[in-house]
Amino acid sequence: MRVLSGIQPTGRFHWGNYFGAIRQYVALQSHPDDAFYFIANLHALTTVRDAAVLREYTYNAALDLLGLGLDPGKATLFVQSDVPEVSELCWILMTVANMGLLERCHAYKDKKAKGVAADTGLFTYPVLMAADILLYDSDLVPVGEDQNQHIEVARDLAGTFNHLFGETFVLPKGYILPDSAKVVGTDGENKMSKSYNNTIEVFEDVGVMKKKVMRITTDSRPVEMPKDPNTDPLYQLYSLFASREKASEMAELYRKGGFGYGMIKKELAELAADYFAEARERREVLAAQPEKVREILGDGAARARKKAAEVLLRAQTACGIKG
Amino acid sequence: MRVLSGIQPTGRFHWGNYFGAIRQYVALQSHPDDAFYFIANLHALTTVRDAAVLREYTYNAALDLLGLGLDPGKATLFVQSDVPEVSELCWILMTVANMGLLERCHAYKDKKAKGVAADTGLFTYPVLMAADILLYDSDLVPVGEDQNQHIEVARDLAGTFNHLFGETFVLPKGYILPDSAKVVGTDGENKMSKSYNNTIEVFEDVGVMKKKVMRITTDSRPVEMPKDPNTDPLYQLYSLFASREKASEMAELYRKGGFGYGMIKKELAELAADYFAEARERREVLAAQPEKVREILGDGAARARKKAAEVLLRAQTACGIKG
Repeated sequence: MRVLSGIQPTGRFHWGNYFGAIRQYVALQSHPDDAFYFIANLHALTTVRDAAVLREYTYNAALDLLGLGLDPGKATLFVQSDVPEVSELCWILMTVANMGLLERCHAYKDKKAKGVAADTGLFTYPVLMAADILLYDSDLVPVGEDQNQHIEVARDLAGTFNHLFGETFVLPKGYILPDSAKVVGTDGENKMSKSYNNTIEVFEDVGVMKKKVMRITTDSRPVEMPKDPNTDPLYQLYSLFASREKASEMAELYRKGGFGYGMIKKELAELAADYFAEARERREVLAAQPEKVREILGDGAARARKKAAEVLLRAQTACGIKG
Repeated sequence: MRVLSGIQPTGRFHWGNYFGAIRQYVALQSHPDDAFYFIANLHALTTVRDAAVLREYTYNAALDLLGLGLDPGKATLFVQSDVPEVSELCWILMTVANMGLLERCHAYKDKKAKGVAADTGLFTYPVLMAADILLYDSDLVPVGEDQNQHIEVARDLAGTFNHLFGETFVLPKGYILPDSAKVVGTDGENKMSKSYNNTIEVFEDVGVMKKKVMRITTDSRPVEMPKDPNTDPLYQLYSLFASREKASEMAELYRKGGFGYGMIKKELAELAADYFAEARERREVLAAQPEKVREILGDGAARARKKAAEVLLRAQTACGIKG
């Protein structure tokens, strides 16, 4: 049973990335053969147009993930472009991908609906994503609900290929992450996301992080008024970091009323600093050993390529490109 | 100065392929570094859906080309899929390809206009073709007039990439082949092409070839009537194989009248058999040594990959995927 997931290095990871995905990656790791995680720099290429920036994001993504607890002894971590086989499989899948299938995919459809000129990379990236998944005989692909469509594309392409050329690919299943939190942004309104400019980075400088927390948008209801914690964005952020006990005490306080948001923000900032303190330390130790990070990524790529070569050859032989 | 051209193994080569392209490949070869020719099996994948057939076409394409005079001592001959770098570059170029650019390309536009469901492989194959060209710093790409659009796509993508990430790719030039003949098919009407089912294969069994020649469609003008050789399909085919002297004698006969088409067909069949006799023999010798053919293709791929690795790394470094 192999779990696979990729994460795009389009910026530094924020709380939304951590509670929405990375925390679960760490929970799901057990053996390097069973958990494949990759930094999707070929996907990032569709949006990041600066080589130095992309290189920096890619390297920092590795540092961040390792800092946050990805363990090379329990998971295979690699950079997508270090496995050339994925591009080879991508083309093969391109030849069995119906245009209509891709035209229905959200990312492209949304952009087209907005009248934005779309690159072919954006249009075809579900095919590359299918290659990412199928190349490793992945069984389970942890996804947020909004990404389930990509699993469907991968299943569709695998099914079409198998139908045309005989059983070749494992049909993957999407795995909606348990405990995967939709994290609200500092605007108190939208999902935390770089596109809303409402993020707090996991490894943000603690001072900057505190300032951002103190500026989280709250409403203007009077202090003494009782409030429903379940609909309050600040409470939602607070409960991500608080122990169960502390969270239920705070919920109680909300229901009674008689508190200021400022007090909660201060507490949230402290909890968040504590929460990531160990990860931050681990990250700093690693950051001082760039050669070790490269070694981990090199080992990961070698492990991934071993599996990739096997599956690619199977596909190439099935369709007559090799053999 | 490097010349590059690819030919799809979607069937056995016919007279149209030979006089339209292969003859010129042979004429343009001089040094293995300067002439790169490849068998485009990744492109063929968009139409050939049978593994055994694609493998056979690919292998026979190599035999045919070598038989027809491609000389591994003067040109680099390789199978497209033996150079994984081309798929890697293909994805990179995908991210700089505007959708509109590809939507304007003939092959896709024509199919869409006919209401045929198009695969993404057909839509994006100009990007793979651009990768084919740019991967080897190709200067000149011999093309028929109808393919000039693909050179334009390659130049466009190279230009966009260079603009975004700095000078990386050589801008290729299309090279409309001199002496590249548009060969008419056995229907006496359309260009010789598998899609019109009007072809005569270069290495057709001589008996079959003669029968096909005898069945070439001609008009029903009376024998004694003078005819214009320049507008007569049979004369056009005849002049491909005849010496200058013989061709002008025949033209004279056309202008005088008093001949039957059957006589010309017989002569054409004999000329064609003679024309390819040496190539046929060379091909048969090679066909008995499959390991030698594999060695030639292996050497070709190794030479091509050496150049490909250099250009790919340049592109990967420029956009931040490596380095």
